[in-house]
Order: sequence, then structure tokens, then C-alpha cells
Amino acid sequence: MGYLFKNISIITMDDERQPVIISDLLIEGSKISRIDTNIPKMAHKVIEGKNLLVMPGFINTHTHVSMSLLRGYGDDLELFEWLSSRIWPIEAKLTKNDVYVGAKLGIAEMLLSGTTTFLDMYQDMEMVGKASQEIGIRCHLSRGTIYTGIENKDNEALKQLEELIDKFHDYDEGRIKVLAGPHAIYTNNTEFLKAQLEIAKRRNIGVNIHVSETKKENEDAILSLGKTPIAYLDEIGLLDAPYVVAAHMIYLNKEDQKIVKNKKIGIAHNPKSNLKLGSGIANVQKYISDGIKVGIGTDGAASNNNLDMLSELQYASLLQKGLNLDATSLNAYETLKMATIEGAKVLNISDRVGMLKEGYDADLIMFDLNQPHYYPIENSHISKIVYSGKSSDIIMTMVKGKTLMVNRELKTIDLDKTYNEVSEIIERVHKEND
Amino acid sequence: MGYLFKNISIITMDDERQPVIISDLLIEGSKISRIDTNIPKMAHKVIEGKNLLVMPGFINTHTHVSMSLLRGYGDDLELFEWLSSRIWPIEAKLTKNDVYVGAKLGIAEMLLSGTTTFLDMYQDMEMVGKASQEIGIRCHLSRGTIYTGIENKDNEALKQLEELIDKFHDYDEGRIKVLAGPHAIYTNNTEFLKAQLEIAKRRNIGVNIHVSETKKENEDAILSLGKTPIAYLDEIGLLDAPYVVAAHMIYLNKEDQKIVKNKKIGIAHNPKSNLKLGSGIANVQKYISDGIKVGIGTDGAASNNNLDMLSELQYASLLQKGLNLDATSLNAYETLKMATIEGAKVLNISDRVGMLKEGYDADLIMFDLNQPHYYPIENSHISKIVYSGKSSDIIMTMVKGKTLMVNRELKTIDLDKTYNEVSEIIERVHKEND
Repeated sequence: MGYLFKNISIITMDDERQPVIISDLLIEGSKISRIDTNIPKMAHKVIEGKNLLVMPGFINTHTHVSMSLLRGYGDDLELFEWLSSRIWPIEAKLTKNDVYVGAKLGIAEMLLSGTTTFLDMYQDMEMVGKASQEIGIRCHLSRGTIYTGIENKDNEALKQLEELIDKFHDYDEGRIKVLAGPHAIYTNNTEFLKAQLEIAKRRNIGVNIHVSETKKENEDAILSLGKTPIAYLDEIGLLDAPYVVAAHMIYLNKEDQKIVKNKKIGIAHNPKSNLKLGSGIANVQKYISDGIKVGIGTDGAASNNNLDMLSELQYASLLQKGLNLDATSLNAYETLKMATIEGAKVLNISDRVGMLKEGYDADLIMFDLNQPHYYPIENSHISKIVYSGKSSDIIMTMVKGKTLMVNRELKTIDLDKTYNEVSEIIERVHKEND
Repeated sequence: MGYLFKNISIITMDDERQPVIISDLLIEGSKISRIDTNIPKMAHKVIEGKNLLVMPGFINTHTHVSMSLLRGYGDDLELFEWLSSRIWPIEAKLTKNDVYVGAKLGIAEMLLSGTTTFLDMYQDMEMVGKASQEIGIRCHLSRGTIYTGIENKDNEALKQLEELIDKFHDYDEGRIKVLAGPHAIYTNNTEFLKAQLEIAKRRNIGVNIHVSETKKENEDAILSLGKTPIAYLDEIGLLDAPYVVAAHMIYLNKEDQKIVKNKKIGIAHNPKSNLKLGSGIANVQKYISDGIKVGIGTDGAASNNNLDMLSELQYASLLQKGLNLDATSLNAYETLKMATIEGAKVLNISDRVGMLKEGYDADLIMFDLNQPHYYPIENSHISKIVYSGKSSDIIMTMVKGKTLMVNRELKTIDLDKTYNEVSEIIERVHKEND
């Protein structure tokens, strides 16, 4: 059994093809086995219809999926007040099972909005791993660390990272990966960063870290370390990890940008979270023009407030045009690349996902373009998805050849059960607050 | 017959009430007759259910609805190239019936995304009026004018404005209104502006005009007129029209802002179009703090590229936070006001729509919050709509007590027929191009 998409519009994101082709696409097992016209119908599930469009699933290069539990809990607040008065007090009360339920809620939202891969950073990451194992989404787990100075606690965090690698890294033919996840330079000291780097090198995994999210972070680094966050990370060797995913990266000077380029650092751009927390706007057009890999991330639902990659990529494109006062900045196709193949490059998996190509894993989504906002249907499909598209028009989300969402219904998550579990958690946490 | 919403979450936008109440809401005829708990069920259609939320319909204070025909036709281009190489050549080929079909397409999209009122500016506005009459949406028609210097043509435009007033102004108890619509100062001369002002004063109607959309517009005005666009409009008396709706208003200096405040000008803020065309970001938080009325508009679908007010208001809020590096800028409630009651003030109809209140017209929308992106459902509904909401969750759009969209189905537009008509127009226009 497999799936045969017949005579369908396809955005392959494969630069060796035209941006949009009309073709058949055959999936056998977990792989795309053929993209061609006139593939004969055999023992496959055939999918055909007018105005359907298939493209690679979205790759969310930065989120904290379990923070979906904190959605709408502290809006319109300054970053520090938000963290200290709203987020941290609640997070201190979250059990392992809460993190698992939060992951299910966030993954449900992502599958319904076309995300097939996400890179996560949080505490109790084995619960996010468990949810991803069960649900079938592609997931990169990074164990978020904050240096406490309490030796037992800090050693335990490192041990948990090693256990996470043992248990999850390369699970299901690489559907799940593990990264080290030092939260940021201002929450880790040099020694603790180096300990995580040592693990990353020895186990051949990536490092995921927040960098230059705010002006203050840069100013503080220059005051206390005498250099910018990126220059500091370079100096201590962290950028020599097997690969590095740096989230936010709003405030890079020319020297920083050179380092990022030379060390082949991947950037996770989070436009909506950066706006919402009043952090600023990263000039990613400049980075991309310089040949730097830039993917898109939603950040967590507590600072966005949703996990919708299609909305996120739209912000990415429009913001660059507005910021640079240049309508040609970050055009539709470049933007779509960020959310797919460039994201795959950032996560070091562009040899298997991020485009639709024979031999690649079948991670894809399908849009139903029969909506007023896609008309006139004759004009560019790329433009339609990027500038007019809505994630609610996605009617299929497939990972490794398995349909996880079809016709807006999740196949591997019991949504009503999850809603009830979320409500129970919120009730409990509020009680504990009283 | 009427509608009784039972035990439902309501955002009234009425400052005399709590932001969110749980109540019943009764509609009789075209009006909201009662908002109270325990209204008895009588011969009404009763609407009840878990996690439903009712609020005023969105008020789109600036669009060119028939430009939906040009959606996706010229993206990622500089404003002038976009206009001259893409938009104007197509517009020159549009017939009156094409404008009618484009209006139907755009109104379909607006009703599906919760807009109940729009202010339009275009050519052949009687066709937009006809579509609105038939469909039942609330519509303000402004006859867009560009001074040609050809006396017959320019007089004809003024005559059409008068005819538009005769035919449509105050139609259906004021559901349709007419405004003069001089396109901009750089497409109209003083004499022509004054001729339209004279009509506005004599007929007691508003004036709708694009102002300070780009830096270049301001620079050109200062070069050729010796003053900013707003100062010029003030000088020639245009701001003394019965009321003025000024779209865009990105580049206002302190003096301009004083004029706008003193003359009680309403601003239509179009954040997505302003980004997409590389025009810039209006600092509307500054205007609002100064007591200026600011509504939200989508602009046309050729520069947005959709007519989704919920998406638009989200951009409005997040952009102010990012622009001002301040997470407290334009909070959720303020933003929702812009899209409803403040929009109604801009359009001079806040005595009848823009909030849910006894005696007001029943222009409202209903959300189904049973979606992962609204959970935890216990947290603020205002925040959920503004920061997490998607227009696809709107399951009812009502204008003057009539349901124009229910469960994502349009009641007064034949969508398939409209799609076919759009495709025929596009085919014809492309043939004429060959």
C-alpha cells in the first residue's frame, strides 16, 4: 500500500524543477518513490481532485511545544515581568505528565497547520519525545539547561541529556533526533556550556541555543564578557559543535555575521515572538543574501500565541519588506524555502526532508485551494500560499508516509481527551496558586 | 422570529461592561433588543453550545474589494512597477460587470472572515453597491477619482458621485453610505479636490482619501507644494468636510498629528499592505495615545493579499510592539477596539454598530473556540482572539439581524458561480493581453 497523488499541483522546493509542476506523486512506505506524469494506478490509495496542492511539510526550527499550556496567560507584558510574574511560577508547578499533555496539545496544533518537523527546547524532554513517538511527528529534542550552581542539579541535567540521546536519538530511522540545549549564555556559565559541548562532540549531536534575542542580552554580554554573545560562543568553542542552531539572532553586527557565516551556524528566525515580546526585527534578508542558513520558528505559544508556521512565514516576508522599505525583499519563493528546505538545512536533515524528491521521506502537506482567498486560481500558487494562504486550508499532513491529519481530523491524537487533560491541569495549577 | 444566543461568551466592546461576559443575547428584526441572563426561549432560533463566542463584526475601514480579481498578479514588486506593469494594464480592461464579480469575490472572503462593514474605493462603484445591496453586507462606497485634465471625463466623475449618492446613500436604513473618494493629492489637483469637497458639504457625506502612504509622497508634496500632504489638505479646506477618512497616514510629523487631532480625522491603518509594498509602518500607538481615531483596513487583495481583518488586527498589534520595542504597546483589547468600535467611529456610524448593545444593529460574528490554538480555554478570550485567533473559526456572520454566513457557508453568494465568473474574466483579460 502507498499513496498516489494524481495530476496534482506540486511545489517541490527542488531547485532542479520548476517552482510549481502538475504531476503525479507516488509514495511507497515512508518514501517518495516517484514524481512523474501518468504513473499507473495500482494498489495505492489514489488522491485526486480539482485545485489541490501538495508541498513539503513545514519545518518549525524553534519552539517550546509544552508551553502551549501557558497560552494567553501573560500577554502585553515586558519580557522580565512576563517571565517572573507569569511563566516561571506556573512552570515550577508543571509535572512530567503536564509536559506530555502540553506537547500533545502543541503537536495537535502543529499537525493541523501543516508542520511535520519541529525542534523543541524545554524541561522533561523525554515527555515531548514520548508524545512524538506515539503521534508520529518528526521531532528534534533539545534538553534545555539553566545553570543553577547546585552541583547535583547541574550534573543531573547533563545526565538527562545523555539519557535522552540513548533513548531517542535516531529513533524510527532518524525521525527523532536529540540536541544539547543550553538555554542561553546569560543562563549558563562557560564551564557548563563546555560540558554540553563535550557531550555534543562525543555523541555527534547538534547544539540548540537562544542568542541575541534582545538588545539587553547583547549589552549585558559586552559589559560582562567584553564581547557579543556570538563572539563569546565562538571564543569558547561552542560554535565548533557538530552543528549549531541559534534562535532569534536579532542583533548581529558585521563581525558576528562573519562568524555565523564561517561557522555555518543555522539561524531560527521567530518573527512573531520577537514582535510580541518587543524584542525587535531580525534583518534576515541581510543574512540570507550573505549565504547564511535561516529557517523559521514559531517559538512557544506563550509568546506568539500560536504554532502556525504559515502565519509565521507570512510575517517573515512582510516584515522584511516593511523593515527594508523594499517590496522586493524576501520574495514568496525565498520565504517558502525558509519554512521548508532551508529549515531542513538548519536542522541538518536536508538530505531527507524539506523538498519533495524521489528517495526523500514523504513528509508533506496538501492544501485545498477552493477558497475565495485563492482566487483567481490561475495566478501563481507560490504567491497564493505565501501571501494569501491560511493553515485551515491544509487538509492533509503526512510524516514518513503516514497520514497524521486528514480532512482536518487528527489520526493519532484524541483531541477531546487532550482538551480535558489540559483543563484539569489548569484547574489544578490555579488551585495551587490560591 | 429572531435569534436568541443562550449562555454564551460575549465580547461586547461596550466599555460600560466587563470585557467578556457570559450572557444571553436577543436579536429582534435588525436590532439587538436585549443582553441579559435568563432571557426566556420564545419563538426564536436558539443558538447555544460550549465554547462559542460572540462579538461585533469587523469593520474594514479601507479596501478596494474588486481588486480581488488582481490577487497574486504582481507580487514582490516596487510600488510603481507594480502599478504600471501589472495593475493598471489589467484595470484598463475591467468592465462594469468585472467590477461586480470582483466585489462578490471580495465580499465572500470578507463574510467568511467576519467582516460586516467595509469602506471601499474604486471605479464603477455602483457595481460594488449593487453587490452589497444583493448580498446584505454593510458597505460604504467612495467613488475613487483621479484627475485627468480632460474636462468631460472629470465632470463625468463628479456626476457619477452625485448619482451614487442619489442611488445608494442611506439605502436600507443606512446599511449603505456614500463618500467622495479623491484617490490622493498626487492624483488630484486643488480645484478637483475642492469640487469634491463642495459635493461632500452640500450632500453631507464624508471624504475618503489616501494620505502619506509613502515617504516619496511626503517628499514630493514638500517639493511641489511646500508642505506635507495633511497640511496641504488642511489649507485647501478638505479637512472641513462633514468627516474625513484618511488611509495609511504613515509619515506624520508632530504638526500633522496636531492637525489630524484638531480636525477629528479618522485614520484607516493598513499594516499588511504597508509592509508588503515596502511603504513602512505607521506608529499608530502614538496616534491613539494622542486621542486620534484609528481603525484597521486590509487595503485591496492585490497588495495584502487577502481581506482578513483578524489577521490584519494581529499584525497591527504585534507591529506596534516590535516597532516600539515595547511589549505593552497596543494591547489586545485596544487592538480589538480598532477593528470594531474605533472603526465605527472612523466611519461615523458608532451610534449603530461596532459594539453589542441594546438598540444597536445586529452586526455580529460567532467563533467556535473548540480548536487547539484556543486552549487552555480558561485563559483570556480577548487574548485568544487577538493573538491566537484564526478567521476560519468564525462560524457565523450576521449583518442587521440577517445571517449571511453560517457554518462556513455563504447564504447570499453562489460561490461556485462566482469562481467560474472570475475564471472567465481572467481568461478573457489574458487573451486580450496576447
